[in-house]
Amino acid sequence: MRLEAVVSRGQGPRARRFPAAPTQPDPGGPVFRNTMPRYEVLSEDAMATLDQGWRRLMTEIGVEFMDDRALELFRKAGQRVEGNTVFLDPDFVLEQVAKAPREFDVQARNPANNIHIGGDSMAFGAVYGPPFVRQGDVRRDATMEDFRSFTKLAQSFAVLDSAGGVICEPNDTPLDSRHLDMTYALQTLTDKVYMGNVVSGVNAADTIAMSSILFGSREAIEETPATISLINCNSPLRWDDRMLEAQFEYSGAGQPVVLTPFILMGAMSPVTIPAALVQQIVEALSGIALSQLIRPGTPVIFGSFLSNIDMQSGSPTFGTPESGLGLLCTGQIARHFGLPFRTGGGLTSSQVADAQAGYEALMTLMPTFLAGANWVMHSAGWLEGGLVAGYEKFIVDVELLQMLRHEFTPLEIDEASMAFDAHQEVGHGGHFLGAMHTMERFRTCFYRPLLSSSENYERWMRNGGNDANDRATVAYQKTLEEYEQPDLDDAVREELEEYVIRRRAELGD
Amino acid sequence: MRLEAVVSRGQGPRARRFPAAPTQPDPGGPVFRNTMPRYEVLSEDAMATLDQGWRRLMTEIGVEFMDDRALELFRKAGQRVEGNTVFLDPDFVLEQVAKAPREFDVQARNPANNIHIGGDSMAFGAVYGPPFVRQGDVRRDATMEDFRSFTKLAQSFAVLDSAGGVICEPNDTPLDSRHLDMTYALQTLTDKVYMGNVVSGVNAADTIAMSSILFGSREAIEETPATISLINCNSPLRWDDRMLEAQFEYSGAGQPVVLTPFILMGAMSPVTIPAALVQQIVEALSGIALSQLIRPGTPVIFGSFLSNIDMQSGSPTFGTPESGLGLLCTGQIARHFGLPFRTGGGLTSSQVADAQAGYEALMTLMPTFLAGANWVMHSAGWLEGGLVAGYEKFIVDVELLQMLRHEFTPLEIDEASMAFDAHQEVGHGGHFLGAMHTMERFRTCFYRPLLSSSENYERWMRNGGNDANDRATVAYQKTLEEYEQPDLDDAVREELEEYVIRRRAELGD
Repeated sequence: MRLEAVVSRGQGPRARRFPAAPTQPDPGGPVFRNTMPRYEVLSEDAMATLDQGWRRLMTEIGVEFMDDRALELFRKAGQRVEGNTVFLDPDFVLEQVAKAPREFDVQARNPANNIHIGGDSMAFGAVYGPPFVRQGDVRRDATMEDFRSFTKLAQSFAVLDSAGGVICEPNDTPLDSRHLDMTYALQTLTDKVYMGNVVSGVNAADTIAMSSILFGSREAIEETPATISLINCNSPLRWDDRMLEAQFEYSGAGQPVVLTPFILMGAMSPVTIPAALVQQIVEALSGIALSQLIRPGTPVIFGSFLSNIDMQSGSPTFGTPESGLGLLCTGQIARHFGLPFRTGGGLTSSQVADAQAGYEALMTLMPTFLAGANWVMHSAGWLEGGLVAGYEKFIVDVELLQMLRHEFTPLEIDEASMAFDAHQEVGHGGHFLGAMHTMERFRTCFYRPLLSSSENYERWMRNGGNDANDRATVAYQKTLEEYEQPDLDDAVREELEEYVIRRRAELGD
Repeated sequence: MRLEAVVSRGQGPRARRFPAAPTQPDPGGPVFRNTMPRYEVLSEDAMATLDQGWRRLMTEIGVEFMDDRALELFRKAGQRVEGNTVFLDPDFVLEQVAKAPREFDVQARNPANNIHIGGDSMAFGAVYGPPFVRQGDVRRDATMEDFRSFTKLAQSFAVLDSAGGVICEPNDTPLDSRHLDMTYALQTLTDKVYMGNVVSGVNAADTIAMSSILFGSREAIEETPATISLINCNSPLRWDDRMLEAQFEYSGAGQPVVLTPFILMGAMSPVTIPAALVQQIVEALSGIALSQLIRPGTPVIFGSFLSNIDMQSGSPTFGTPESGLGLLCTGQIARHFGLPFRTGGGLTSSQVADAQAGYEALMTLMPTFLAGANWVMHSAGWLEGGLVAGYEKFIVDVELLQMLRHEFTPLEIDEASMAFDAHQEVGHGGHFLGAMHTMERFRTCFYRPLLSSSENYERWMRNGGNDANDRATVAYQKTLEEYEQPDLDDAVREELEEYVIRRRAELGD
């Protein structure tokens, strides 16, 4: 396979963004700051009960680490190790957790796209991992061309801070070297933060090497990290060897890792939400403790991927009431431990971008904002329980993210906002369409949708009677047509290309 | 037109409910009690600023009442009246508001369906007012048969406490007497609370008379009200004559009225949310004050119907960020005045039950639950900005209501819920499908959807590849097929029929 031809259009370091709502203010700047209240549902008593629960589980059942280096680190730190199981002292774990930064920055090659993780910042990445894609009625294997298209979409919408990592699996590229192609695409087609590959320690090392090229040196990315990587737990209570290999590479290089219990309640955890929460704490904190043993102070994110299965069919389900409630609790728990956290996204079980996809995505995204999640994966394009990256669904999710950014921007309540003069002008039973107060504000006063239609019936029919899915097709195609690649220094691009070509050969592809 | 033949199937006073999730617990009983925290977004300072705003607007601009009896009542109570405008003293208004009950009951003919309005109770009624209906691809004028079908759907789902009132406009019945047909249908096809007709004082009097028949006497409904009626303001700041006529009838009979500012920001109010909130307070409180002058202590509900227009087209828009934020504030404001409140619903501008309809409905319903609205109109079936009652959308909304009831049910966090024994049984990397803890709970542990599908791709395709809209068609048709009419005493039914026949003749139809 050839490397994609890189077209440098010389438009300066700042990429053109799709003007979804050209005249409205973009609240919060490049990274959204959610300064609305948090919605907290756990009482102090409930939190104390959960605290007892995770301490007991960690102490008595322990956590398996399928990596000798990890076991050795825990043993040397005085923890009891039997076989692959580490019986962790909760207070020791909390000491390690306290070494992790509460907040940190991640740099993008365009400094305007740097992100902050933690506090009231919320950063959003696209869907991660699907082997398939859907375009309208067509569902098929994902390809490298799809990977590039989704990456371009993520670059085009200001509301997304990252294309994520494996935005879809490029099944037409060799398994051993596709991480090189994906990383190269993320580095060149976007100028936003990207995620690191975690399939193996080798892949992680390649990602770090390519990031060192892009940002000038390994020192440059150790000083301010340039990748975020997802380390999933093999829940319940086991960290697998390949994920741990990647964690050693990334934590060793000071790159943030998202330690994520992967829990579908009923399968990977008990069916009760409190049990899932307790297990999630044990898993996340044990992984975080390991990161701090590898490199004290290395940035970490408390991860959560929490939903449930359908107990009749065993199918995973998303956007459920249980997952929404679990998400709200997760935010509160992460704050309890003083850690930035990852959860949420536009999750759905639906096969297509229909009503179910719309409400399930929002059923996850609304609690995501209520909880103030700091790092939100799967924010755009998730379909069919994560098996499919949906082009139309991508547009639906961008609309939801834009709406929620507006909804979670505090009101300014002052004298002018109460518009007494407009009432004097309009009087009883009149209308405000032509009032001075309106004329001064009409361009920016309300959110302007990207996808939603408020056309009346006659106009809607004249325009083809297209539902949201039809309109989303038009929107993603238009966005791809208008995409312009962000500029990149030729020397850097060539060095990245050389690295990819050399490593591909070494890996035998 | 003949009265519908009433089929008494003799199955006792309790109507059969559609078992959407037969084996799961129905949290909260017949009327949902939302004991989760309220999500409040207004600071004390913000509330104080709004307090200054509404006091000034009420004092200096005043409110128009297009009814001489209303003007006379205000004049006699010492308020300044000029023409139709009443310049209200805010403290006088608050004295009147204090006479209204904070909470009250409304009786249904099946006592199991009585509802409580206020406190943490949330009661839900179906869509109200659409002249059109949509079934799949067909959009057409609503008929009396549609009215009956939607009433049957409302009766069939336990999550709905009321079919509402004008669930759709039966355009094939005479205008002057259709309120009789609608009230009769609501009284006989459901045994839940219903809403009163408000087109005129005459219609209101007929509703009260028919309710007196159904509940035995006028005294019986004055003791515990049997209807709820919607009195809309002609915003900005005008109460129209016909609505006021109906209000005099209902408040005079001690029947609760929902005093509702009808605000699409940009048209009926200034474009800023604080201005809309201030105007909403003035309008609602002025109407509530009138009710208390008509009959001190008569039950009222602080109403809100608050969204915005699209400033490019002038079209009303629903499920917007601005409406969601306004809704959250409205709940806080109503509690500030110690009043039960109405807001929310499954609002959308969409023409069909697509992704937009799904997310816009939830964009309104989620804040409805976060705010803890006490009386929620338009909870099921709203489509196309309220012009259309959608059969498929009805099912989408019932699903959302059921999900939200589950999500807003507090977690029980205790020793058993943390499932330590299940972890002992399963160990590291195992699964919980067969664990004892799971076996004891699998039937009821998770919400079971009415509409959402989590089928895998192959199975979904084998079953026809139906999207949520297609599946909703099947669901509403099945529900109508399985509908069974609640029993009603023959003598009462005959008396109601006689009343309708006599009044229809008197009205000239």
